[in-house]
Amino acid sequence: MSGRKNGPALSGECVGILAGGGPLPGQVARAAVAMGLRVFIVGFQDFAEPAIIEPWPHRYIRLAAAGEILSCLRAEQCRDLVLIGPVRRPSFSDLRPDATGARIMARIGRALFSGDDGLLAAIVRVLAEEGFTIHGAHEFLSGSVGRRGVLGRVQPDAQAQADIGRGRAVVDAIGRLDIGQGCVVQDGLVLAVEAMEGTDRMLLRAGECRQPGRPGGVLVKMLKPGQDRRADLPTIGPDTVRRAAQAGLRGIAFQAGATLLTDPDGCVAAANEAGLFLAGIE
Amino acid sequence: MSGRKNGPALSGECVGILAGGGPLPGQVARAAVAMGLRVFIVGFQDFAEPAIIEPWPHRYIRLAAAGEILSCLRAEQCRDLVLIGPVRRPSFSDLRPDATGARIMARIGRALFSGDDGLLAAIVRVLAEEGFTIHGAHEFLSGSVGRRGVLGRVQPDAQAQADIGRGRAVVDAIGRLDIGQGCVVQDGLVLAVEAMEGTDRMLLRAGECRQPGRPGGVLVKMLKPGQDRRADLPTIGPDTVRRAAQAGLRGIAFQAGATLLTDPDGCVAAANEAGLFLAGIE
Repeated sequence: MSGRKNGPALSGECVGILAGGGPLPGQVARAAVAMGLRVFIVGFQDFAEPAIIEPWPHRYIRLAAAGEILSCLRAEQCRDLVLIGPVRRPSFSDLRPDATGARIMARIGRALFSGDDGLLAAIVRVLAEEGFTIHGAHEFLSGSVGRRGVLGRVQPDAQAQADIGRGRAVVDAIGRLDIGQGCVVQDGLVLAVEAMEGTDRMLLRAGECRQPGRPGGVLVKMLKPGQDRRADLPTIGPDTVRRAAQAGLRGIAFQAGATLLTDPDGCVAAANEAGLFLAGIE
Repeated sequence: MSGRKNGPALSGECVGILAGGGPLPGQVARAAVAMGLRVFIVGFQDFAEPAIIEPWPHRYIRLAAAGEILSCLRAEQCRDLVLIGPVRRPSFSDLRPDATGARIMARIGRALFSGDDGLLAAIVRVLAEEGFTIHGAHEFLSGSVGRRGVLGRVQPDAQAQADIGRGRAVVDAIGRLDIGQGCVVQDGLVLAVEAMEGTDRMLLRAGECRQPGRPGGVLVKMLKPGQDRRADLPTIGPDTVRRAAQAGLRGIAFQAGATLLTDPDGCVAAANEAGLFLAGIE
């Protein structure tokens, strides 16, 4: 057992990071090392970014080569795992699973055909059955978890609060159906709902559908109800803030305690510069 | 009263058609004249298509010039009205209501700020209060109402039926929130949900988000639960069928009895040619 005072309860001294794209895998590695832990990154080929993972002990493995991934993690004595960074849902024809991958796909079964949340929850379950402990990235990046209340200088007004309320109801409903984690509301009108296309494309579309003579416009991002926080937490970066501003929005509301800011200071600076609010809601 | 044997029960002999874009205003006019009625078309400026409405007695009036619209309809002795053809939701800055328009906007009140369905229902209510009888376009175009069952040669298979079932649940949920009337589902996965952008743009996006190694892909269009059928019925034309085919979909499911086909024969021909199914569901 570890003699560390802070951070998550771990079963070993090495944290295995299953890394998709973006900067967060590197941030988790840095945080774990700062806690006195060893890390090993399995970078998903075609998704993990070399500049992010190559400063750390790592190997690139195909997403579907589950046998190779599991034996690599065991050889590195990583019993604690973090899944972090976006991975596009692969097409079956691209998967080419290895023998263990094919067995695991059979175990995942119908969840392969469900929404993202069902699939990720099934992967977490299978990894647990294989003897690993799965942690959320937020357990390592507690400083990057968006907290309740307003970040930055701009406050949401009464009209923005009303739009946030409507957006919550919408995201709650689409989340229950495992569709997505976000929507854009302007003055009571739902401009766009996020499904497979992701937040960036939804923001672009919302900007084009925005009603020019009407006030407001808010991006609302929240967990799906019942979503496992160890996979696919909503993520906001400075680019998200800038894209929201380009779409003519007044602010972003995110679920407090369940959203990762890839660069908290950069998000606040971008929001202040663009005159947007950034509000953590419960 | 009219001595006609078929068609809707009318209070007068002239049908006023409040016309947005597309071919349906002309089809309603032709059907009403074939029933022995007189028609007068108020074409909403910038939305109604000249080639469609100019063969009939008509006048162009701005959408927000409600006083002018009402006095024109009264002068033409049109007590029966049909609202048909898409109108983009106007921005407040573009509206420039006349005096009656401003009074009507005040009567519509909060519904101005709600989704499309709330707004249209409020407009139907105000017109009824002004002494008009509002009819659905489907009362005149009974031959263009999509019926239950499969049109054309292609049948949905079991997997398509499952996707239709999931799509119904999704459209039902987003309809209850007055968000939109459609979605695209592929093999259990919701690729795209329609909000303000309309069906064409959703289909384009669904095609880009489609999972290449997985089977299927279905467009589902339905009324919002409780929606007034006298306004904004879901509409499918041959172009919709071709766009669904370009997006790689296998078929289209529409709500039987509550969907207008702008060109039923053309829709079936396009579906047969592309190998898509067209299914009316209840």
